[in-house]
Amino acid sequence: MQEQFKFHMPTEILFENGLTQKMGRYIKGSSVLIISDPFLYKNGTAQRIGDTLAGKTVTYFSDIEPNPSCESVDAATAVARESKADCVIGLGGGSSLDVSKIVSCLVTNPGSIYDYYSGGTRVLESRTTQLVCIPTTAGTGSEVTNVGVFTNRKTHIKMPMVNNQFWPDIAMIDPQLTYTLPSAVTASTGMDAFCHAIEAYWNKNALPMCDMLSMGALKLIIDNIKTAYDTPSNCEARSAMIVASLVAGISFSQTRTTGIHALSFPLTTEFGASHGTACSITLPAFIRVSSQYEAQKMNSLVHYLGYESVEQFADAVEALMRSMNMPVRLHELGVQEKDIPHIAEVGLSAAIIQLTPADMNQKTVEALLRSIL
Amino acid sequence: MQEQFKFHMPTEILFENGLTQKMGRYIKGSSVLIISDPFLYKNGTAQRIGDTLAGKTVTYFSDIEPNPSCESVDAATAVARESKADCVIGLGGGSSLDVSKIVSCLVTNPGSIYDYYSGGTRVLESRTTQLVCIPTTAGTGSEVTNVGVFTNRKTHIKMPMVNNQFWPDIAMIDPQLTYTLPSAVTASTGMDAFCHAIEAYWNKNALPMCDMLSMGALKLIIDNIKTAYDTPSNCEARSAMIVASLVAGISFSQTRTTGIHALSFPLTTEFGASHGTACSITLPAFIRVSSQYEAQKMNSLVHYLGYESVEQFADAVEALMRSMNMPVRLHELGVQEKDIPHIAEVGLSAAIIQLTPADMNQKTVEALLRSIL
Repeated sequence: MQEQFKFHMPTEILFENGLTQKMGRYIKGSSVLIISDPFLYKNGTAQRIGDTLAGKTVTYFSDIEPNPSCESVDAATAVARESKADCVIGLGGGSSLDVSKIVSCLVTNPGSIYDYYSGGTRVLESRTTQLVCIPTTAGTGSEVTNVGVFTNRKTHIKMPMVNNQFWPDIAMIDPQLTYTLPSAVTASTGMDAFCHAIEAYWNKNALPMCDMLSMGALKLIIDNIKTAYDTPSNCEARSAMIVASLVAGISFSQTRTTGIHALSFPLTTEFGASHGTACSITLPAFIRVSSQYEAQKMNSLVHYLGYESVEQFADAVEALMRSMNMPVRLHELGVQEKDIPHIAEVGLSAAIIQLTPADMNQKTVEALLRSIL
Repeated sequence: MQEQFKFHMPTEILFENGLTQKMGRYIKGSSVLIISDPFLYKNGTAQRIGDTLAGKTVTYFSDIEPNPSCESVDAATAVARESKADCVIGLGGGSSLDVSKIVSCLVTNPGSIYDYYSGGTRVLESRTTQLVCIPTTAGTGSEVTNVGVFTNRKTHIKMPMVNNQFWPDIAMIDPQLTYTLPSAVTASTGMDAFCHAIEAYWNKNALPMCDMLSMGALKLIIDNIKTAYDTPSNCEARSAMIVASLVAGISFSQTRTTGIHALSFPLTTEFGASHGTACSITLPAFIRVSSQYEAQKMNSLVHYLGYESVEQFADAVEALMRSMNMPVRLHELGVQEKDIPHIAEVGLSAAIIQLTPADMNQKTVEALLRSIL
């Protein structure tokens, strides 16, 4: 047992197929802002939800880009303030959900996101606007975390912002919203959730409840991701995957992530890999490394998941990724030997890398990266 | 996967050995009321905690009896109002914790508990007094539920009261407080936690996160309860047991319990069995019954726990109870054949009995009871 731990996840979780078509009774006040990306607006998903909110004024903001910028946050905030939003609904992958978190605070907190983040010195006061997060991918878990990741366009730095005002009031989980996800997105977001679960499990901040949740999430993913990838309309697999993402989200919301996520930052910003791909490409290597330091715990996990050894598990994860056409070697992303010192350096600059249960320094991280070049 | 579920457990959990000796920074306001039973007051536990709250006015209320009455609640409320308590700390087993929940609300809500409970028609408004719950047994899980169980002395009826104001702000888990628990209490409260975990697992309201937590809690209990019973000073086993109780509490806080708890009510009130004993005496029988209706799920559980079959598991649980000198047959509590129809009837009057995954009626419940007479 750990010597000490904390657990706090105050968000109310509602799960039901079709829930977003009858969610009116959960929404407070008369003015609602729905924040999404352009795709979910154009394909009618945002409006289908807005149309169910009878008697309320619904405003849409749909200019959220991947890796959302502070400028997008400020633009959405202007709309939220103008519409006097009583409720902000974030709809989408991690980007829209993250933006909805800070916008719901800025409705009643003055100024720009820059006043509170990335060098800003103001402190967010209590949020009074309701915050509802609705994921449309089974991956980020953002609906049950108090973190938003924003990019400062001036400095080109992408940085997480952690704030207890960011816990959504409600996380609405509606598997139907994921039925039309393309297979490649199913694979990469699903493997992102896999990383969340296992990084929480081997984390130096690990705690018993999260260990239990991570084990359950990993089992759900292993049992269902390939089915969801092969047969996107398989409702049972889609439900299992969005629940796995949710559970993995609860787990890493308490522990934070580790080296996998730290190294994903340069692989995304400099080599263009999607977040899930950039994370999972180092996953088998991190399984092997972490198992040297957490041998007993990792053995318990892999036996629970039905594998005979950690080595067999790592191989199976790599085979699973290959079976979904995901890259498993860094050169597939365009990384060359000469890039490795720099990737290691950028990864080591993220504090979370030191939550990996292994000695993480320039030499060891370069060796890990070379092992999968 | 279930078709729908909800999960909401907003309490902040803090776990650390010795935490209650340095908890001042978590306590709000200047006036603190510590509610406990007479034993924890007389042996100095309550005062040792109060003494660490430097600069605050600390008042003690220590007249909490087992199966606390509404009269005790009203007496504690009078003290809380007089001391203008900013924070109410519940310290003890389930009784003190349950009383602290309603008292923290009644500081700012007028009248008696009878106005809100057991026929009362008033509704509790938002609680503004901080509520901190500190368990001293590893069993009830009350520190992470929104339920209090009170006895109406006028009608002699013991009834649960469920209210979202009852979620503690903070659950403080300090294993040290359990080091001196007598072995018999370790056994009965630990088996109560076992029942919470498994009743949440096979519950008709079951949900994925709670299934995962229940599995983990059951493993902790099976691996540690006998050690804690045999060697009360074993810190590792004590930590594991209080965490198991906590996790089982989170689990059943979402699902409620089932037939085991329903039948425990008459066994406690009419045959004087302690709550944990009254629950666990029917546990092996309920394992056998529930497994007929939840065969696959129960098989997954018992294999995870290291057993080959449900039957072997049920036998092992019974042997575990015997090894801790707990009764495993109803006649050991003084129950006779002629009492069985009445016990079944009273058990069936508790709504939770219908959350058992089995056909629960007068005939089936009597048969279950006769099988362990």
